[in-house]
Amino acid sequence: MAHDDPRLLICDLARAFYDLGWVSGTGGGICIRDGDRVVIAPSAVQKERMRPEQLFTLALDGSLLTRPDDPSLRPSECTSLFLKAINLRGAGAVIHTHSLHAVMATLLFEAEFSVSHLEMIKGIEGMGYRDRLVVPIIDNTARECDLAEALEEAILAYPKTHAVLVSRHGVYVWGRDWVSAKTHAECYDYLFRAAVEMRRAGIATTMEGGVDDASVPTGRADARGRG
Amino acid sequence: MAHDDPRLLICDLARAFYDLGWVSGTGGGICIRDGDRVVIAPSAVQKERMRPEQLFTLALDGSLLTRPDDPSLRPSECTSLFLKAINLRGAGAVIHTHSLHAVMATLLFEAEFSVSHLEMIKGIEGMGYRDRLVVPIIDNTARECDLAEALEEAILAYPKTHAVLVSRHGVYVWGRDWVSAKTHAECYDYLFRAAVEMRRAGIATTMEGGVDDASVPTGRADARGRG
Amino acid sequence: MAHDDPRLLICDLARAFYDLGWVSGTGGGICIRDGDRVVIAPSAVQKERMRPEQLFTLALDGSLLTRPDDPSLRPSECTSLFLKAINLRGAGAVIHTHSLHAVMATLLFEAEFSVSHLEMIKGIEGMGYRDRLVVPIIDNTARECDLAEALEEAILAYPKTHAVLVSRHGVYVWGRDWVSAKTHAECYDYLFRAAVEMRRAGIATTMEGGVDDASVPTGRADARGRG
Amino acid sequence: MAHDDPRLLICDLARAFYDLGWVSGTGGGICIRDGDRVVIAPSAVQKERMRPEQLFTLALDGSLLTRPDDPSLRPSECTSLFLKAINLRGAGAVIHTHSLHAVMATLLFEAEFSVSHLEMIKGIEGMGYRDRLVVPIIDNTARECDLAEALEEAILAYPKTHAVLVSRHGVYVWGRDWVSAKTHAECYDYLFRAAVEMRRAGIATTMEGGVDDASVPTGRADARGRG
Repeated sequence: MAHDDPRLLICDLARAFYDLGWVSGTGGGICIRDGDRVVIAPSAVQKERMRPEQLFTLALDGSLLTRPDDPSLRPSECTSLFLKAINLRGAGAVIHTHSLHAVMATLLFEAEFSVSHLEMIKGIEGMGYRDRLVVPIIDNTARECDLAEALEEAILAYPKTHAVLVSRHGVYVWGRDWVSAKTHAECYDYLFRAAVEMRRAGIATTMEGGVDDASVPTGRADARGRG
Repeated sequence: MAHDDPRLLICDLARAFYDLGWVSGTGGGICIRDGDRVVIAPSAVQKERMRPEQLFTLALDGSLLTRPDDPSLRPSECTSLFLKAINLRGAGAVIHTHSLHAVMATLLFEAEFSVSHLEMIKGIEGMGYRDRLVVPIIDNTARECDLAEALEEAILAYPKTHAVLVSRHGVYVWGRDWVSAKTHAECYDYLFRAAVEMRRAGIATTMEGGVDDASVPTGRADARGRG
Repeated sequence: MAHDDPRLLICDLARAFYDLGWVSGTGGGICIRDGDRVVIAPSAVQKERMRPEQLFTLALDGSLLTRPDDPSLRPSECTSLFLKAINLRGAGAVIHTHSLHAVMATLLFEAEFSVSHLEMIKGIEGMGYRDRLVVPIIDNTARECDLAEALEEAILAYPKTHAVLVSRHGVYVWGRDWVSAKTHAECYDYLFRAAVEMRRAGIATTMEGGVDDASVPTGRADARGRG
Repeated sequence: MAHDDPRLLICDLARAFYDLGWVSGTGGGICIRDGDRVVIAPSAVQKERMRPEQLFTLALDGSLLTRPDDPSLRPSECTSLFLKAINLRGAGAVIHTHSLHAVMATLLFEAEFSVSHLEMIKGIEGMGYRDRLVVPIIDNTARECDLAEALEEAILAYPKTHAVLVSRHGVYVWGRDWVSAKTHAECYDYLFRAAVEMRRAGIATTMEGGVDDASVPTGRADARGRG
């Protein structure tokens, strides 16, 4: 198996994401596109102990190409959601985390998460330091596959986003390849955490004083808006 | 010694739990059932440096089957508590942590910890996203073995729980096998931490506005109850 | 060099303490007594990259027995403080950390840090769950060696303590051997962090409502005092 | 390649900084001076996976001496900023982090970050425990290279500083060699975090009651100013 085989990469990244607290309790997931195939993790396994022979390979329409020998394994519950980002946005990899920073962001913001004037915004493709980075927040559903429709709507309604937050659940993040998806996941997570800490300290998360900043005392927000 | 020998697994998991801050200061413990035997860690040793030859093996009634050569070692103080979960619930593994998230949860909630509408609730066997996850909180005692009676009462009174919190002390978590117990431990710990952060931000931890949410400002709780 | 050689242990522990955030920026220190000799780390080196050949050996009166070949190395600035715990308390190892939890504890408590009714108190030799654990806090000085007199006074005034906090600086912790000193260091650090989080949440850190709890709203403290 | 080759050191340090959360999302950077050459990381690569053959070598005037074979790599965007610290201060290494503690410090302080009476201040060359440690904060710009002029002004205006904070972005830290730069980076980061936690707890970060402490209740600040 080659050093950059998607199956090795997925297992390696999953271990790293576990250490970041993103995929504990068998939660979260990851897939990497390999030409016209998608390599995807199984559902409900310990992500930090995953092995290459436990992975599935799908076609872009979701049909099964190869499966692991272990008959108890099923493809990740995120499969239909991952395929949305791949087919609607040309994503080369999609990462799903249960990061508590993402969940807290969905609790502290209403329909949209937004920040501006933070350097890490530049880590998101197409965004500059002074841009208002917006991430749509969709409602959670009892079953993960039932999120697919709302995720598609959010992807279409927010053509510049590379992530969709799911309320009280986590976040889906993608990029043109696995490096871009991982970079995006790290930058978004940093920004979710920064926004939570800024709100706690009474600091506005955007400069424009938009609707998402309604709960921040006006004077304080102005006083700090100098970066 | 086989790769999946419970003695190796216990030492491996103990190291991982140390890194999570769950078993520092020689605290906490773990046991794994192996057929009609229970492999259990010794008391008061550094959990992250534990070796397979330091473990004990007990019968299901608690009688000693094998013991380490080192005469200074005693079985974990948690033994009688571990056996409650094994014999009353058919647990295949039990984990005891001193996680500060668990301790803070016992300080911020009264007789019961409860959350609803958080995705990680689905990581607990038998629970769905919208279910109200309840974990009983029992009072701590001066000696760990004196907790056994209250733990048994809580297990019988809460037939759906896979965990019991001990006030100002930590949590006991179990599952049908070691993978399930570890998954439960990670999900409960995430939920304890989430609830502590939600309370700090003035966000209700359940949607029903039950007695455990009395300290949360009503308007705020309603406004946020939308996930 | 044997597996349990104090020089190897010191380097191994220093790396672990670095990962805990206790000895960053070359701060902190550790010594282990080996019969009538004391093995001690050098001053101002990166603790996580320390090597056995960089260590010093002292007699119990502080006189130098062996020194590293590198002429630029000096014995730890903590030396006179370490020897106080060894000679006044029979300590077999002493650990000095700059843990931010310890520093915050010195800022939130006045002359004494105190907690009661937390399970981790039992990790300190001679203490029970319901005991009031008290750690004296001494004022910091411009030079570390100038702390020695105040440290000796605190050790004599608090015969049951295994630690002395230094205001805005950190903590000195000891035990009868290196395992006991490390266990104590982990338990104290956990308790410092717990107390800081409890104060933040408005929860009293002791049950007796002593002078150190004056800043906690009385009603809240009573309501929570049930563990 | 020798054990202390700057190219190996840069990759090793970058991995460690990633684990500290300082260079996630390909952010941040590091350079080490080697005689009259400067070894520098490439722009926009995953810092924790960087390899020695991906590094650039520059002359002190910024002209390119050697470059990696991979034609897609460009020198770090921090290059002109790194050279300011090298040429104006004789720095032997410069570290740039996006640490959230640094960013929060720029949001909670106005033009200058300042602390006094914290032991870790002694980790900064030339500073004592009771000194007022001041770090200038410059405004961020849309492009990193546009920071160079403001950085130079701050370096000249604050002759004692070994760091410059960039508002809503991060920090540049240097030292006479890589060990000193790393020690400084760890001490500054600790102090940024300490100051954020002290502000959150209503504790003044300096004893003098200067302009940067205007938002701290006076009585509380006095009561705590005893270290």
